[in-house]
Amino acid sequence: MISSASSFDRRHLLGINGLQPTEIVHLLDRAEEAVAVSRRPDKKTSVLKGRTQINLFFEASTRTQASFEIAGKRLGADVMNMSVANSSVKKGETLIDTAMTLNAMQPDILIVRHHAAGAVALLSQKVACSVVNAGDGQHEHPTQALLDALTIRRHKGSEFQHLTVVICGDVLHSRVARSNILLLNALGARVRVVAPSTLLPRGIEQMGVEIVHDMREGLKDADVVMMLRLQRERMEGAFVPSVREYFRYFGLDAEKLAHAKPDALVMHPGPMNRGVEIASDIADGPQSVIEEQVEMGVAVRMAVIATLIGQTGGPR
Amino acid sequence: MISSASSFDRRHLLGINGLQPTEIVHLLDRAEEAVAVSRRPDKKTSVLKGRTQINLFFEASTRTQASFEIAGKRLGADVMNMSVANSSVKKGETLIDTAMTLNAMQPDILIVRHHAAGAVALLSQKVACSVVNAGDGQHEHPTQALLDALTIRRHKGSEFQHLTVVICGDVLHSRVARSNILLLNALGARVRVVAPSTLLPRGIEQMGVEIVHDMREGLKDADVVMMLRLQRERMEGAFVPSVREYFRYFGLDAEKLAHAKPDALVMHPGPMNRGVEIASDIADGPQSVIEEQVEMGVAVRMAVIATLIGQTGGPR
Amino acid sequence: MISSASSFDRRHLLGINGLQPTEIVHLLDRAEEAVAVSRRPDKKTSVLKGRTQINLFFEASTRTQASFEIAGKRLGADVMNMSVANSSVKKGETLIDTAMTLNAMQPDILIVRHHAAGAVALLSQKVACSVVNAGDGQHEHPTQALLDALTIRRHKGSEFQHLTVVICGDVLHSRVARSNILLLNALGARVRVVAPSTLLPRGIEQMGVEIVHDMREGLKDADVVMMLRLQRERMEGAFVPSVREYFRYFGLDAEKLAHAKPDALVMHPGPMNRGVEIASDIADGPQSVIEEQVEMGVAVRMAVIATLIGQTGGPR
Repeated sequence: MISSASSFDRRHLLGINGLQPTEIVHLLDRAEEAVAVSRRPDKKTSVLKGRTQINLFFEASTRTQASFEIAGKRLGADVMNMSVANSSVKKGETLIDTAMTLNAMQPDILIVRHHAAGAVALLSQKVACSVVNAGDGQHEHPTQALLDALTIRRHKGSEFQHLTVVICGDVLHSRVARSNILLLNALGARVRVVAPSTLLPRGIEQMGVEIVHDMREGLKDADVVMMLRLQRERMEGAFVPSVREYFRYFGLDAEKLAHAKPDALVMHPGPMNRGVEIASDIADGPQSVIEEQVEMGVAVRMAVIATLIGQTGGPR
Repeated sequence: MISSASSFDRRHLLGINGLQPTEIVHLLDRAEEAVAVSRRPDKKTSVLKGRTQINLFFEASTRTQASFEIAGKRLGADVMNMSVANSSVKKGETLIDTAMTLNAMQPDILIVRHHAAGAVALLSQKVACSVVNAGDGQHEHPTQALLDALTIRRHKGSEFQHLTVVICGDVLHSRVARSNILLLNALGARVRVVAPSTLLPRGIEQMGVEIVHDMREGLKDADVVMMLRLQRERMEGAFVPSVREYFRYFGLDAEKLAHAKPDALVMHPGPMNRGVEIASDIADGPQSVIEEQVEMGVAVRMAVIATLIGQTGGPR
Repeated sequence: MISSASSFDRRHLLGINGLQPTEIVHLLDRAEEAVAVSRRPDKKTSVLKGRTQINLFFEASTRTQASFEIAGKRLGADVMNMSVANSSVKKGETLIDTAMTLNAMQPDILIVRHHAAGAVALLSQKVACSVVNAGDGQHEHPTQALLDALTIRRHKGSEFQHLTVVICGDVLHSRVARSNILLLNALGARVRVVAPSTLLPRGIEQMGVEIVHDMREGLKDADVVMMLRLQRERMEGAFVPSVREYFRYFGLDAEKLAHAKPDALVMHPGPMNRGVEIASDIADGPQSVIEEQVEMGVAVRMAVIATLIGQTGGPR
């Protein structure tokens, strides 16, 4: 974990948009080192001893917060969780005042999730420490895209330009899809999106992806099949699809998966709706790398935190 | 805390049921060492440095969770709390998917409380790490039984076969009673249960206990009086007893306690309903060891965690 | 952080009331050392290695709890948060039983916030460890007063007898105002209170302060202007002032501030209601030290915790 030379010298990680391929590869390489750390009995390093990490989550997400918390602790940092349910935000404090208050406690890094696109970037301009975007509205979720790329690279090698990655499902509500498209494009993969037109965002055509509305056609020649969570909680009234019908047309089952390459990876960012976007036997089957994604999540977050604080953690 | 030889080589602690007396005694002996650690000014050991403990509580319990958190931290582990209120479970994720996700973050030990009997055992079959049952439905709560046994042993010595332990009150809803009966039977104590028949579970007769419905008769010759919390929140409609009437017949007061041996210990797992199952002057009186039980709780949990991870914490 | 000689040998910090000026100055001096620690890249000391700190908050306050949590962690202590929302208090356990239970887990220090005046002092009589009052009802909030004094001293020097400090706004509901008045009086400052008579507590005249009802008149010659949060959530029915009218008469804006000395400090304990008790341009302006107050908060809490445990942390 102590790679001294760095090809990543930003202070924040706000999105995949704008990252150079060399920067992405640098983070993936460093994450690979972190994988080994987490597999040791003593998983603790002292890279960030005495540093303070604050997880500031305006939107509940136990899974992502846990991953960042474990990452920070394994690096030796002191980690503090702040969930907004109990916070001053309830008493009318603004986002920026909350950020400024935390900043004055001199954290080295803030991990921020917010329901509004752009809120994390705005916040990052007001603080002296590093900021990681842990998901902002329907905008970006960069560490998810990095952990997906790391998982793919471990199975398919680093020649992304030879890979066809198919992203299926509720693209409309998915910052995961957005960050993944940006990252896979940057590394040269061919990206195909499969979704009903009602679950595609406007302007998706301009992101350099193929668009297909039929699963069997879309899965053809796929090296990687990324399923997305159907975010019914973000849908309104008439637009919520019937679960049974959704599964019939867009759920990944054995029959549909047979149209992809025989060794295609099956991925899902979690939490899964079994029987909605993915059949249970596929989620638990030999092509699934869903649990490995979670493991890579901790590793990627260790790499990101260590890299960012490595840039800014000097005396101030 | 570094007893290398071990007569306890299980990976999980799911219940008292099935434990050998030597295993119980081994854990109690190791807990005795932990008592000394917590009484030092520097209460921190490095036995579990770099290990990850996750407290996964599907049912809120500040008291038990705090005890496990302090235990893990004093052993040097990184401890992460996950309460289900904020978790993916709300988004429809299954118990097993939650477990698999956490497992992929490579914890060394999961401490799990769940409202359904058997859920913790099921979960333990799916993960690579150790699992401790911190209470599952009305089934078992093994660390509570161990801490009760440790408290008794410190006052009455290790010859449990000479002791009469009387468990009083709401046995029906009590996993504490169940685990205690199993443990006390294993160590050879004579166990008597005192409760109205409406607060006794079916089949209790087959657990090797005497059953008495009158407190004065039941307390006769008692060396230890274990009061149980009246769990009114788990009762329905007509079956909820009147608090005043309950106290009159089954609440422990000075007059009823006088029927036990003069040096009988008074115990309660907490949190207490003062004036319901126990009179305040008895809870705070000279025979009460209720606070000592809490102290022994931290010690027993340190012993259990250190022992389990000692078995499984090697390279994997 | 290792000043061995101490002029502060109390076990608890329950309020400013009763503290000697030398004790206050001792804590401020020690806090000054802590400021330097938090500005280092490695902010961790080992002063309290292996000690256990429990934050017991019966009233939600992310800001204050975070400050105490960071303070404890930077001192090397193990910190555990207990918020009452999930606690046994819900199951009917009394304040004292909660305290006794935590006490039995052998913490070295409890940080307690409670909605009832006097509850923290009561609790402190029942436990073996140190207790810090983190706010009790409308009574005291001593660490806030200490951090305010530290902030003032850094800008205006230690000759408090030459300073005029004006406290403005909702004094009625403010433990912050009360603790500040006590501390500033102890150090010899001249204290003036500016508020509508409906927002002044009875008996305020006997606290040795001037009382003024007009902002412009009250701010005259002020070296320090402390604004208070308008606590509308604690007001009832007819007594809740209109926000617009309140700002017009008692909100700090540039025109009103011009009546204070040109280099007067502007302070606010946070969280701010911008546009209610303070104009945004003043909160963010050159005279504002509001963020510095937050930084000093961590430092003062480090000093308080280290000093108290230094007294009581020996073998027991």
